[in-house]
Amino acid sequence: MSKSAIIAANAAFYAAFATGDVAAMERLWADEDGISCIHPGWPGIIGRATVMGSWRDILENPNRPQIACAEPHAIVEGDSGRVLCIEIVDGTALAATNHFRRIGNAWLLVHHQSSPIAQIVEQAHDDPTGPSRRIH
Amino acid sequence: MSKSAIIAANAAFYAAFATGDVAAMERLWADEDGISCIHPGWPGIIGRATVMGSWRDILENPNRPQIACAEPHAIVEGDSGRVLCIEIVDGTALAATNHFRRIGNAWLLVHHQSSPIAQIVEQAHDDPTGPSRRIH
Repeated sequence: MSKSAIIAANAAFYAAFATGDVAAMERLWADEDGISCIHPGWPGIIGRATVMGSWRDILENPNRPQIACAEPHAIVEGDSGRVLCIEIVDGTALAATNHFRRIGNAWLLVHHQSSPIAQIVEQAHDDPTGPSRRIH
Repeated sequence: MSKSAIIAANAAFYAAFATGDVAAMERLWADEDGISCIHPGWPGIIGRATVMGSWRDILENPNRPQIACAEPHAIVEGDSGRVLCIEIVDGTALAATNHFRRIGNAWLLVHHQSSPIAQIVEQAHDDPTGPSRRIH
C-alpha cells in the first residue's frame, strides 16, 4: 500500500512536469524550507522559494524537453521513501531519485536528483549486450 | 547536534572513500537491502550486496580518483537526513547527496547519488562572474 502510494506520487510528479502544471508541482512538494533539488548538470539548490522557482522556470519554458519516467522502483522506510527511476528526456536517459516524506496522508517531495547516464545509451549502441560492469 | 552528527557521518564516508577503507565503508551503510546508490554516469543500483560490491570495486581499484568533499550542507527531518555537497574528483566538480537514516545512535547511509556538474566548471572559466541562472 505504501509502495503504490509513493509510486503514484512519483507518477504525479512526472505528469506535472510533462504538462507544465506549476500549481500541481507546487502541491506535490513539501511546503517547507528543507526541500532541495539537484537538476542535471547543476549544483544543488535548497529552500522552498529557490526549488519551486527553478520548477517554475522549467515548466513555463515552452521549449522544455519532453520527459517520461521508466522503471520506477520504490523504497519505503517508515515515513520516508524514495523512488529510483530512469528519466527519458528528449531521447536521453537520466538516472533519477525522488525522495518523499509522508506528511499527513500524502507522500510529498523533499528532494529530487537527476543524473545524466548518456554514456550508457551510447555504449548500448556500440555493444548490444549492454555494459557488463556498472562501476568504473 | 543532529546536524553536526550527520556532517561527521558524511565526513567519515569521504574519509573511507579517500583511504580505500572497505571495512569502514561497510560499517557506514545501513545493513539492509533497501540501500541504493547512483554512481556518476550509471543507472541506479539497489540492495546491500550490490551497493557494497560497487564500493568494494571502487575502493580496491588502485587507480581510483582522488576525492574531496566541499560545502557540505545538512538537512535533518526526524530520523532521516541528507547532506548536499560538492565532490571534487580529480579536479572535476560533482553535485552529490548522501542520504542517512538514524538507526540507534548512528546516522547510516541509505542512498548516495553523485551527478556531474562539469559544465559549471567550464562556464566559470569562460565567465568569471559565474552562471547567472542555475536552470536551463
